[in-house]
Parts: sequence; structure tokens; C-alpha cells
Amino acid sequence: MSAKLPTRAENYPEWYVELVKRADLAENSEVRGCMVIKPYGYAIWEKMQAKLDRMFKDTGHVNAYFPLFIPKSYLSKEAEHVEGFAKECAVVTHHRLMASPDGKGLVVDPDAKLEEELVVRPTSETIIWSTYRNWIQSYRDLPLLINQWANVVRWELRTRLFLRTTEFLWQEGHTAHASSQEAVEETERMLEVYTTFAEGTMAVPVIRGVKSPSERFAGAVETYCIEALMQDGKALQAGTSHFLGQNFAKAFDVVFLNKDNKQEHVWATSWGVSTRLMGALVMSHSDDKGLVLPPELAPIQVVIVPIYKTEDEKSAVIKACTEIASAIRVGGVTVKLDDDDSKRPGWKFAEWELKGVPVRLTLGPKDLAAGQVEVFRRDQSDAPKVTMPIDEVVQHVPGLLYQIQLNLLNTARQRMEANTHRIDDYEAFKRQLDAPEGGFILAHWDGTAETEELIKTETKATIRCIPLGAPDEAGTCIRSGKPSARRVLFARAY
Amino acid sequence: MSAKLPTRAENYPEWYVELVKRADLAENSEVRGCMVIKPYGYAIWEKMQAKLDRMFKDTGHVNAYFPLFIPKSYLSKEAEHVEGFAKECAVVTHHRLMASPDGKGLVVDPDAKLEEELVVRPTSETIIWSTYRNWIQSYRDLPLLINQWANVVRWELRTRLFLRTTEFLWQEGHTAHASSQEAVEETERMLEVYTTFAEGTMAVPVIRGVKSPSERFAGAVETYCIEALMQDGKALQAGTSHFLGQNFAKAFDVVFLNKDNKQEHVWATSWGVSTRLMGALVMSHSDDKGLVLPPELAPIQVVIVPIYKTEDEKSAVIKACTEIASAIRVGGVTVKLDDDDSKRPGWKFAEWELKGVPVRLTLGPKDLAAGQVEVFRRDQSDAPKVTMPIDEVVQHVPGLLYQIQLNLLNTARQRMEANTHRIDDYEAFKRQLDAPEGGFILAHWDGTAETEELIKTETKATIRCIPLGAPDEAGTCIRSGKPSARRVLFARAY
Repeated sequence: MSAKLPTRAENYPEWYVELVKRADLAENSEVRGCMVIKPYGYAIWEKMQAKLDRMFKDTGHVNAYFPLFIPKSYLSKEAEHVEGFAKECAVVTHHRLMASPDGKGLVVDPDAKLEEELVVRPTSETIIWSTYRNWIQSYRDLPLLINQWANVVRWELRTRLFLRTTEFLWQEGHTAHASSQEAVEETERMLEVYTTFAEGTMAVPVIRGVKSPSERFAGAVETYCIEALMQDGKALQAGTSHFLGQNFAKAFDVVFLNKDNKQEHVWATSWGVSTRLMGALVMSHSDDKGLVLPPELAPIQVVIVPIYKTEDEKSAVIKACTEIASAIRVGGVTVKLDDDDSKRPGWKFAEWELKGVPVRLTLGPKDLAAGQVEVFRRDQSDAPKVTMPIDEVVQHVPGLLYQIQLNLLNTARQRMEANTHRIDDYEAFKRQLDAPEGGFILAHWDGTAETEELIKTETKATIRCIPLGAPDEAGTCIRSGKPSARRVLFARAY
Repeated sequence: MSAKLPTRAENYPEWYVELVKRADLAENSEVRGCMVIKPYGYAIWEKMQAKLDRMFKDTGHVNAYFPLFIPKSYLSKEAEHVEGFAKECAVVTHHRLMASPDGKGLVVDPDAKLEEELVVRPTSETIIWSTYRNWIQSYRDLPLLINQWANVVRWELRTRLFLRTTEFLWQEGHTAHASSQEAVEETERMLEVYTTFAEGTMAVPVIRGVKSPSERFAGAVETYCIEALMQDGKALQAGTSHFLGQNFAKAFDVVFLNKDNKQEHVWATSWGVSTRLMGALVMSHSDDKGLVLPPELAPIQVVIVPIYKTEDEKSAVIKACTEIASAIRVGGVTVKLDDDDSKRPGWKFAEWELKGVPVRLTLGPKDLAAGQVEVFRRDQSDAPKVTMPIDEVVQHVPGLLYQIQLNLLNTARQRMEANTHRIDDYEAFKRQLDAPEGGFILAHWDGTAETEELIKTETKATIRCIPLGAPDEAGTCIRSGKPSARRVLFARAY
């Protein structure tokens, strides 16, 4: 750590990227657009994975694994899908390198050209539905509820750590159903799982909704999504769940014998969240001192920093800290006792604040004499110092972690609510978008792709979603003045 | 399930591939050499991953994630490494497809040619060591103990499900150390972890050893390995742990300031196991009726099959089975109650034997009246029927699973020992290799690559390893008659 972290007010994008790097979450690799997820960042991602995986299994899903490569011709089988992905994919054309004839390094061996090029999967609908064709004959084979944890590649021109990278990690659920209704129910169920995860585990409040037709996933009949609001007033799509109708079943000829003994195309869903969630996590809670992690996802939930000068002090303080650490661990809490002699306490305070550890306990010889420990909450880092009797702190920690988790959600929710505006005037709409606090705007829209595009071009704001359960409310479109039946959610977005 | 599974005696390779498919472990995809790992197979792999991951973390390692793509030029930086991998790698040359000018499908967009081609990682030493360069400055940054769970691609000409596939899943550990000794210790420690996993979790006994120079990993100073013996008498390399010396540190210029304040190149190890272990698992224990899974890796440890004809019988039997299932689950055992009315008991018996479920409990009206349950062990499927009082079976199950786990290991170990031969005569050596039971052969070798190659050409047997701790024993090379200081392990291998 050399220079200070930029503040959010100074330069939010730079604050974000610098924080991701300095907190050891990730860094850019030497491969264009591809990141290295560092151990501390990966530990958070592993916690996300573990929680989501349990939620998927609790809702009846199983994991499987499908090939990384997709034959080029598969992409073309679903007309909209190919439009969405052909322009940004990594293409494998050869299967061998050879020594360069000039003796300098390697060149592609022209004799090893593939008959058909392979695309590195940007998403797996096509390879999975070509596989499902052989797995599904009758309604008895349905539903098929499969998830895959995988890496995918989309050749993005402008990338930013976690938020938009050429390669990213994700999970993609791909389910097959005997009826449209059942598939829609699955689509909505997984949106609920994502909502519960975002709010309950990440402490990131979200708005659930459906995308406008022009923002739908390529090949979907309906795209559901959850949208979060970052601290800079920009929206971030945190997860999507697609009702695919029979589009992929038709493209890949997947039919089943229904209960009436008739051949019918299978109904499909797909749904995914990715390492992009890491970006949402950082941008929702963190501050100018560094990361603020919700206890549910913190690799270290409690750090204990001992303070001492003499060897006698050291042995007494370390002994007490070790006992506290062991007692807290019994409750399933992850504790790090930072007894590194080569660093000073002040350095450690700054380091663990940068890393977002939810609770810090500090214990020195005076505390020990007084039978107390200092308790620091990362989510309230400017609050006055709090001390607590040593024999109470162990019992106190689990409840404290729970309070921090709730406080982060509530703070983020209040921020989101305070920054959600109902606006009926296009000039006010533009002013709000240009204001430093930005935010969500609920406004009327006439339902046409033309108006949506106009608004996007003129303001850089997009329709994030048509919120679920939004009340019917007659109004006039903020741009065209034409009639509208309900408000939709606008924002500038990541 | 239509025709019967081929028997091992009839056609071992066909038995293997058919079993993998019929037991729903995996199937070939439409992408050459790439497999689809089906949910039942993936559930076993998940259990392998979970156990290994815990073992890695218990030995101080953390996980991270590095890019899928490796710039072509990186491969060339380590001279032996490039020899080993350049000839079998998938090469990305373009980043966009476009509509074909003839309107038929897609073609590679010639304007989207990459400046430098990217190789899909066959292994990650090069990309990781180019990253470590920035992470390591001083001995205080060492050791660096990192593992990655990832997919890798090696363009294999002849593929077989799990055993050799173009894409496979694996973990690769990459560690950096301040001294040669520490790196060697790490290499050996991970070999021990693999040994414990193979024998303790997979119930597959292994021989630990080091590879002969010609069988070393491309770029390694020493390759340690564990070698298992399959039921057909062929060897299978189940895991490798490489001491890389300073080769990659020199290739990627990774130096550190040592305690004597001098710049020194970093010492390295790498180690990995892959989905190939799934093949070892299947071929070690399974029989002509199907899979035999060790309880530690079985997705379903106990299946309960209720038997009934009338509705009254059904409700009484299902009630009793449900109670037994719940009581067994309390002990952390995975139980499936197969109450599917559309299948007959005999079909279920065959199905769960095919799937390798370690224990089957059967309960019908007569059993219920007698207060007993039939207990079937998959590892002793030809043993006479055993019944047990219902109120004892719940307590009995955990111990029974443990016995099965041990029995599988012991059976496999006895088989391995019975099929390990000390041979001193080249004709006898060849006869043993050609015999149906094949096996491991401990024989003298003069230590030269020439003799090793001759033996390989003449017999298709390779040196699997120079066993660790093999006693010094003067002898003469089985092929050349030259002096030899110890026996090495030969076999034909997968």
C-alpha cells in the first residue's frame, strides 16, 4: 500500500478498481480482458458459490458439466441467440502449434486447421439443448433441473474487474419442462432464489422485474432480472432468469411424448449469476477506507489484534487473545489472530479495514488489566470506541455479526429508497440522471422500442426492468407523451 | 437399459465405456473428444472435490483463479514445457464470427484476427508464473501456496470417457518457495495427500514413486506420482506432484530477496489430479453388474426398496421405510427411499446395483410382520441374503458403510499385491505382460532412456515409477543385462 485509496467522491470508478486491487480481490492479467481472481477475492466467491449451490439443491437441482467448446454451427440454430453472441466470441480454429520456420517461437500449424471452428462458450444453451435431445423422450423424463458451474467467454471491448471481463465465472441453470406454466414457475422460483441470496447473503437490496423486449436475453421469451443500485447511483443487473418458451427445443428438435400421448416441444428456462456479483458486493457497501463485507461472505469475520511492547506483555496478551479466538471459533465464526510481529498495530488496523473484516477486537495490557476488550465494527467505523468485558465478548460476537449483516442491508435499502424517484417530466428526468447521486427513476414509458432507444440515446439511461407487482397506473410516456399503463424503472447502468 | 452390460472378461474396454454410460456417469458430446459429465457422475466428482479441497486447505493452501487463455509466446518460454504441450492445444485465432457472404450460417470474421494467438490452457504453469512475478519480491512473500480448480484442454487424438478427454476438469496446485528443500518437501507432502485420498477416500491402493526422466512432466526436475492397478492388469497414473526447481522462475524471471539480502530465483512445485480419477474409481471396484462405489464417494449411500402389492401393504411398508430412512439420515448418511410406483422391485434392484449404491435395504409385508429388514451389500453381491431386526438396522448402517469402505480397499490391495511380480527374465517379463491378468512388474533397469525406449517398443510396457523407499538391490537390467541398483515398476498403462 503506497498512496491513499482515491475517495468515492473524487473518482468513483477509480476508487472501485483501486479497491479491488488493493484489497487483493483481483487484478488484470496479461491476457486482454481476463482477470486473475486472487485468493482473498476467490474466498468470497467460494462462499457465494457454496450458499447458492445449497439453495439450488434445496430447490431440486443437480449439477452437471457440459463442454467448453460449441461447434460454430450450433450458434446459428436459434436465430436471435446467434445475433446476441456471434460478434463477441473467442474462436478456436486450430489444434496445434509448431516451431516457426524462422526458428523464433511458435506459429499455428496450418495442417491442424479444424474442419468446423469451435466457439468458446459464451453461454451454454446450444450445447446443452443439443444434449437434452437425447435425454428427453417422455413427460416422465421431465422436469430436468440442471445447473452448471463454469467459465464463459464473451469478447468485451471495454472491460473492468469483475463487472465486465472477457472470461468470467458463473453458474448457469438449464431446465426442461412439460408445460409453459411449469417453466414460468421455475423462472420465477429462481428469481426468488437470487433475490433471497442478494438480500440475505450479500445484503444488497434489489428490484425484481422483467426486461423490456429489447433488453431480453438473446433467445428468451421473457427475461426476469434483479437490479441493484450502486453507491454512485448507477444500476447493476445482478442476476437474470429466462423463460425460453420452446425456442431452443425447436432449434434443437427436442420433443417429448406428453401425457396425452402427443409429441410436443419441451419448455425451457435458463438462469445465471456470475463473478459480476463481486463487483456489486464491493460497490454496495464499501467506503473510502476500503471493503465493507457482510459477515455472511467475509472470509475472516473477526480479526483480533494484540497490542504489546515487552515480552511479558506479549505472552500475557497473546494468551488471552488465543483463548478468546478459540472460544469464538467454537460458535462457527471465522477468526484470525493477527500476531505478526513484523507489523505495527496501526498498520494492521488499516489493513483489516481495507480488507473489510466485519469485527475487530483489540486487546492490550491495560485492557487485560481491566478485563476488557475493544470492539470495532467495520460497518460503523467512525463510531466512538466501544469496550466490553472479556467474558462477555464471546457470547456477543454472533449477535454482533448478525446486526452488522442486517445493518448493511438496511443501510443499502434506505439508500436505494432515498435514490428512487418518481419523475413525470423529461427535463427533470435528465437533470436527475445528471445529478451526482443519479439513482433509479420510475417513469412512464409508451412501451415502444423506438421511445426506449430514443431515451437511451438522449440520456444514456436504459429501462432496467418493468418491476414485478408494480401497480397499474395510467399516465403518459415521459418522452413521447403517449399513454402508458404503468411506470418502469430507468437508470444509467453498469 | 436394453442389452446386458458386456462382462469384464468378454471385453474390458467395452465393459468400462458401456458402464460409464449406463450408470449415467458421462457420455460423449457432439464436440470431438469432449465429454458431458452427467448429474450422477458429477455428484461423485463433487464429493472428490470437496474432500480434496478440505485436504488442501488443511495443508495451508488457498484457492485462486487464473485465465483460461495463455498467450502463445508464454508457452515457448520454458523449453521443455513447449515441447510437451504445443502439439496438442486448442488455438484461438479470432474473436468474432460474421454472417457468411453466401447467407448460409456463420464464418470467422477475417477482420477479427488476434494479434497474438491464445492457447486454451493445457496446464497453467506459464500464466501463473508470469503472474507470480509481480506477487513475489522478498522471502516474506513465500511460500505461496495456491490451488486452482479449472478446466483444461489437451487435443488428444484417441479419447476415452474420463481416462483421456480433450477437455477435462482438474485441480492444479502451484506453489512458490524460498528454498529447494522446502519445495521438495511440498512436492512430497502433496504426494502424501493424494495417496491418502486415493486409498482412504477412493479405496484405491497406489504405489508412490518418481518418474523416470523420460516420463517427467515437461519442465519438471522431478515428477512424483501415484500409480494404481486396474482390474484388467493395466496401470493408471492417478496423480502427479512435480518439483519444478527454478525452471519456471527462470523462464518468467521470478526472483526474490532472500534472508541474506541476495536476489535468488524462486523454487516451484505443481501438482494435480483430474476427472481421470473417475475412471480409476470405476475400473478399480466395479463388476459385471455395474458400479461398485466406496461409501465415501457414493452420492446415495443407502437405498431402501419397499415391496408391496395392496394399498394397505403399501401404506404400512412405506411408513416403516420412511421411519428407517429418517433415522438413518440423522447419522449423516445419504438415503434414498425408492417409492416410484412405475417400476418393479426387480428393476430397482438391478438399477441400484448398476449405480453402485453400497447398501440396499428391502422391506416387504412379511419382513414387517417379522420385524426385520433385508440388508444387501453391493460389494458382496453374491453373498447369501442377510436379514436384521428393524430396530437394529439404523445403528448398524454407519459401521456397515465403514466395513464396505475397508473391504473395497483391502480387496483392491490384495488384487494389486497378487498381481505384482518380481521378474528377472525378459521372456518371462513379456509373457506376464501378455497374460490376461497383466499386472505390475518389478524388474531391474539399467537407468538409460535407450533401454526404457526399447522395452516400451518391444512390449508396450512403460516404467510407471521408481517406487519410493524401494530397497537397494543389486541386479542386472532385464533387457540390457547391464548393472542395476534397484528394481523399478513396469506395466502397460492407460
